[in-house]
Amino acid sequence: MQDLNRLIDELMVMIRDRRGADPEQSYVARMHSKGRLMMAQKVGEEAIETALAAVAQEREQVVGESADLVFHLLMLWVDCGIDPKEVAHELDRRRKIPRLDEKSAHKSKTS
Amino acid sequence: MQDLNRLIDELMVMIRDRRGADPEQSYVARMHSKGRLMMAQKVGEEAIETALAAVAQEREQVVGESADLVFHLLMLWVDCGIDPKEVAHELDRRRKIPRLDEKSAHKSKTS
Amino acid sequence: MQDLNRLIDELMVMIRDRRGADPEQSYVARMHSKGRLMMAQKVGEEAIETALAAVAQEREQVVGESADLVFHLLMLWVDCGIDPKEVAHELDRRRKIPRLDEKSAHKSKTS
Amino acid sequence: MQDLNRLIDELMVMIRDRRGADPEQSYVARMHSKGRLMMAQKVGEEAIETALAAVAQEREQVVGESADLVFHLLMLWVDCGIDPKEVAHELDRRRKIPRLDEKSAHKSKTS
Repeated sequence: MQDLNRLIDELMVMIRDRRGADPEQSYVARMHSKGRLMMAQKVGEEAIETALAAVAQEREQVVGESADLVFHLLMLWVDCGIDPKEVAHELDRRRKIPRLDEKSAHKSKTS
Repeated sequence: MQDLNRLIDELMVMIRDRRGADPEQSYVARMHSKGRLMMAQKVGEEAIETALAAVAQEREQVVGESADLVFHLLMLWVDCGIDPKEVAHELDRRRKIPRLDEKSAHKSKTS
Repeated sequence: MQDLNRLIDELMVMIRDRRGADPEQSYVARMHSKGRLMMAQKVGEEAIETALAAVAQEREQVVGESADLVFHLLMLWVDCGIDPKEVAHELDRRRKIPRLDEKSAHKSKTS
Repeated sequence: MQDLNRLIDELMVMIRDRRGADPEQSYVARMHSKGRLMMAQKVGEEAIETALAAVAQEREQVVGESADLVFHLLMLWVDCGIDPKEVAHELDRRRKIPRLDEKSAHKSKTS
């Protein structure tokens, strides 16, 4: 795998494709049939597993859980009708702001 | 932004670059100075915000929170010495398994 | 503090009481004015902080974050019109099932 | 169930008791054998499920997921050698501070 663009594109195609498949045969179809609440839950769960693996210094597990997180995030985006390009655009937009960096910092959601 | 490879590469360079900057000036430096526990925590938090926004049908918020999630995930990978290519490789590997799909499904971590 | 019943009762009274207070003056009023999405988010976040502190072996932090988690959970219950007694009843009900234990185990929500 | 003190005490006794049981027979023993990382993960996951159920307006599910959350939190406390009285004491301590309320508010973890 060298080309991230192609990988993401192909995963998106696969996810869109399999949504209508037999839930007995396809994990994507199974998640789709369970609905958005379940996909959202999985995104949260995989993120927690990624976070905990990082703190527990389990490097290989961080890679594996991150792959799970990204895959479930793609499924959630498909369900919300969001193209990965929109998220990339948002990341890019913030990056171009002088001290992008500070940009993220001024979020004050918990205060 | 068309090229995901370049965007991710450039974000990785920026993150590695800013880690040693003045925490007063840079969010990346600030997160780095707080340590991995804090980055892991942010990954979990942004994922929850993404998940809740999706369930609350707040599409634009899903895009924004997803961008935050990806950015903090990149920071955590840098801190763990993980290259995004490793995660992409893992995603690609699973995808190539016949019925990749089922592959993910048989994980039974919580049961 | 010896009496958990009284502590929880008094916290519930306080939360119900302060909801209508000035958001500038009261954290409860502030959370209430931000709405259920924000309270739900805080429950998720405090749980992640509790989990990460436990894995990082920070015992005192586990106690502190757990207190935060319980407090935000009480706020969320109030917002949903749930009495702590209902949750206690549910815990009690499961406990009384022979091998309660197994009862929890057969949940298969993520698989 | 009227007495929260007794319910929590009895659950703590049960959890301590079953830790050494046969993992095939007991969920508590199974979680214990999987270790703290797994218990911490479950606390995070049950909190996300509670949060999502609240946002999705699924009242009964909030009660059920909250019971799961509390139960897994008790297991995590046992594993960390934390007595529920310590958490209650911490909640009580904060409550007695004039404008306790504000006390919680000045946490500024993400800023």
